[in-house]
Amino acid sequence: MKTIKTVKEMKEIVDSYKASFNKTIGLVPTMGYLHDGHLSLIKRAREENHIVIVSVFVNPTQFGVNEDYEIYPKDIKRDKELAEAAGADYMFHPTVEEMYPTGHKTYVEVLDITDKLCGASRPGHFKGVTTIVNKLFQIVEPNRAYFGLKDAQQVAVVQQMVRDLFLNTEIVPCPIVREPDGLAMSSRNILLSPEDRQAALILSKGLMEAKKIVDCGEKNVFTIKEKIIKIISQEPTVNIDYIEMLQFPTLEAVSIIGGKVLIAIAAKVGNVRLIDNIIMEE
Amino acid sequence: MKTIKTVKEMKEIVDSYKASFNKTIGLVPTMGYLHDGHLSLIKRAREENHIVIVSVFVNPTQFGVNEDYEIYPKDIKRDKELAEAAGADYMFHPTVEEMYPTGHKTYVEVLDITDKLCGASRPGHFKGVTTIVNKLFQIVEPNRAYFGLKDAQQVAVVQQMVRDLFLNTEIVPCPIVREPDGLAMSSRNILLSPEDRQAALILSKGLMEAKKIVDCGEKNVFTIKEKIIKIISQEPTVNIDYIEMLQFPTLEAVSIIGGKVLIAIAAKVGNVRLIDNIIMEE
Repeated sequence: MKTIKTVKEMKEIVDSYKASFNKTIGLVPTMGYLHDGHLSLIKRAREENHIVIVSVFVNPTQFGVNEDYEIYPKDIKRDKELAEAAGADYMFHPTVEEMYPTGHKTYVEVLDITDKLCGASRPGHFKGVTTIVNKLFQIVEPNRAYFGLKDAQQVAVVQQMVRDLFLNTEIVPCPIVREPDGLAMSSRNILLSPEDRQAALILSKGLMEAKKIVDCGEKNVFTIKEKIIKIISQEPTVNIDYIEMLQFPTLEAVSIIGGKVLIAIAAKVGNVRLIDNIIMEE
Repeated sequence: MKTIKTVKEMKEIVDSYKASFNKTIGLVPTMGYLHDGHLSLIKRAREENHIVIVSVFVNPTQFGVNEDYEIYPKDIKRDKELAEAAGADYMFHPTVEEMYPTGHKTYVEVLDITDKLCGASRPGHFKGVTTIVNKLFQIVEPNRAYFGLKDAQQVAVVQQMVRDLFLNTEIVPCPIVREPDGLAMSSRNILLSPEDRQAALILSKGLMEAKKIVDCGEKNVFTIKEKIIKIISQEPTVNIDYIEMLQFPTLEAVSIIGGKVLIAIAAKVGNVRLIDNIIMEE
């Protein structure tokens, strides 16, 4: 696996593949500190494409002023080893100045579906996401790009951008990967104290309980939500940001469960903001 | 010349050229009602590319609520004849629903340099421009795109977008084409009454006078601006929207003429808003 630091060199490599043969490129965009969730994306990309590019870039424009940009975990040496072992051909690891050169002024924004869930709690977050994903797509020209469903709203927003701007990239949403005890994998999990790590399990527990009662016939969103709140409230160190049930991927409001429904949770566990969700198809 | 109405068909044609040979594609994005200015872009594209695509699309998102979207002149039959004669291979002529399907939510925006000149008078205008140009670039994947310098700010804004989003398209700015009496060619000129058509000549006259006094040694922007205002005020039916002198293409303020300077005018002549400019290099 080769590591590429500049847009110019990355574009030259992409051009060489595009020109010589009909090679397909799979992109796995990440903020690094790779875990098994990321690796599942890389492995899937490996199966489906001739060339696999993993980007590692902690994107400043998707962090709010009081968020964890400065302390976001990093270990590029380990990331390289893991990405290579999972089958990546290239790691694209640019600097902030490379992706946002002095004087940059352009943003890509998806309206409406970015106002809810994490978009409501983190204003500007998805504008940062769509801007950086758009830049990466222009540089890498991927045939397919792989995103984990842990951030289900991100999948919906990026798919909307691809559709609206007629981008030539297929978005491949991939299932959440969980620790054996149910905690959704996240680079931020390392920031949890051992006690908070234990308390955080209540999030996936709440979701699994919700699924159970839906499977048993409960279709009223308000009732299900109350049930999840009751479960999560058992952990006093877990502060719910939101629990929402929405149609997926339109993110439209829903009052009675039907079709494809996202149950999404965001909560602060200690100082760490975590998200988790399940998508149910009725 | 073939006329293409759908994004899907346009993309298939582009793909066939991209796949089979190393063909270059030149795009001339227009709002139709073609004049010699547009035709100069098409001819230039013809000289420099294997395939020339002219788009004709009156883009609703770049018009304000009280602007002339509804009465923007149209004559697609004539446009086709003129584009073909100038050397176009394809005309891309989609519907509004095709470019902005129901439920579209995505915009591309360049900040800062879009706040001045026409951006100040027409809020949201350039957001509409960059969004539609971005869509066209994704569909047509042009190696080069040709823009007239009559809208010099548009050239600067689109170049900024290309740089910031790492688009694979070279922007080719082309000189303003004028009527023999000096009036800058514009599709909107047809909306002028004969008297207003005559009065409108004062805009190019003002710019030529400005150039003269700069050539004679006057470098003070305030003095030059006063001079232009004095000239244009001779025509009572011409209402100045702005007269600005800015560095080009950064659109930074300038007080003493030096480097590449844009003198830009916008004015209402009767009910028609016209723009004109010159770029001087000192």
